[in-house]
Amino acid sequence: MTGPLHQRIRADIEARIRSGEWPPGHRVPFETELMADYGCARMTVSKAMAALVDAGLIVRRKRAGTFVARPRVHAPVLNIPDIQSEIVARGETYAFRLLSRTLRQPDRDSPEEVALAAGGKLLALDGVHDADGRPFALERRLVSLKAVPEIAEADFAQTPPGAWLLEHVAWTEAESRISAVNADPDDARLLALDEGAACLVVDRRTWREGQHVTRVRQIFPGEAYDLVARFGPGA
Amino acid sequence: MTGPLHQRIRADIEARIRSGEWPPGHRVPFETELMADYGCARMTVSKAMAALVDAGLIVRRKRAGTFVARPRVHAPVLNIPDIQSEIVARGETYAFRLLSRTLRQPDRDSPEEVALAAGGKLLALDGVHDADGRPFALERRLVSLKAVPEIAEADFAQTPPGAWLLEHVAWTEAESRISAVNADPDDARLLALDEGAACLVVDRRTWREGQHVTRVRQIFPGEAYDLVARFGPGA
Repeated sequence: MTGPLHQRIRADIEARIRSGEWPPGHRVPFETELMADYGCARMTVSKAMAALVDAGLIVRRKRAGTFVARPRVHAPVLNIPDIQSEIVARGETYAFRLLSRTLRQPDRDSPEEVALAAGGKLLALDGVHDADGRPFALERRLVSLKAVPEIAEADFAQTPPGAWLLEHVAWTEAESRISAVNADPDDARLLALDEGAACLVVDRRTWREGQHVTRVRQIFPGEAYDLVARFGPGA
Repeated sequence: MTGPLHQRIRADIEARIRSGEWPPGHRVPFETELMADYGCARMTVSKAMAALVDAGLIVRRKRAGTFVARPRVHAPVLNIPDIQSEIVARGETYAFRLLSRTLRQPDRDSPEEVALAAGGKLLALDGVHDADGRPFALERRLVSLKAVPEIAEADFAQTPPGAWLLEHVAWTEAESRISAVNADPDDARLLALDEGAACLVVDRRTWREGQHVTRVRQIFPGEAYDLVARFGPGA
């Protein structure tokens, strides 16, 4: 290949990643090593690495170094995603870890919680979706006991709360709000991310025939997840 | 109001914001000042402030302090947004600053650019959408001259490139990819954000009857913009 050296370095690394020689999670050599290998300045190496980060092929972790990225999950926007299926479709093992389960009254300072509870109690469920034993998404959920009384007895060891709800409740309407946030210290720890890492957040509310059923906040590492929508002018 | 002190502090500040006493951009007192005002520990104040950040009412800026947030723009997912209208709808003035305009060959290392160009040249347009004189979104766009030859002569002083395209091209299909990234130093400077601030990124490709017209990356400060989708099970 001809062209500038930073393009050659980029192409060499990309070829190793595409061929599988460097699998996801493989540590990419330090910039100083690449400078020695190619006999070039740091700026040349940095330019190649920046292009690989932009292309989503490698990720940088503070203090730990630079690693081959796992392929991002591209999920459709207009859907309640089955995270388990998304992970299994990548050939990875799936597990849900329930962090906490609390039956409680709505926070009377939160009009949204009061409306969701509709005079009843709320089941608060926090948990982590794991892919191949590593955190994939963090989930904080509230379910209206008034709308779904039988969830009080549900056992989430086999079926995580989202899948349980999809099986038990014929929802008719959902609204998702998609935003970007910097991981706070708690969320960063739970997702094994650097504090401040950009996360894609989906806040979704779901109704059944006008009755509010559940509200969930799902937090995905930005490097691992994006949302896709295909549409026409009449959408 | 009764209840824990951190809730009272939160409610006091929220009331000042909702009443307009503290408008968007107003500096919130430092935690040490609030500790003195309420005669309480830092943890109590921090709890109140964290709740206000979560609610999107205030934003923290490194080194500069904490400020009343501007209301977020909630844009529909399934749409090519007219950013100008979104800003004007908030009662703010709109302006587009063209940063660069380059007519060039596609990067032959990028299969996507080669496909977009379809044997012709690309017009590369970078610019910033301003609201009330402050950066609202950063836009990096490529337009296929083969698909839209007349854009070579367009003057974007009155009409920014996105609006120009909506006026001149009857698009038939679009695909958006939504992701979260940490602002790199360049983008942070252009958006007047802290480096690393979480940004919501929309990468959108647009076609007219199967012909690829344009590709645009729009970068929004996470604190200022989110996307909303309402849908049913048949979506």
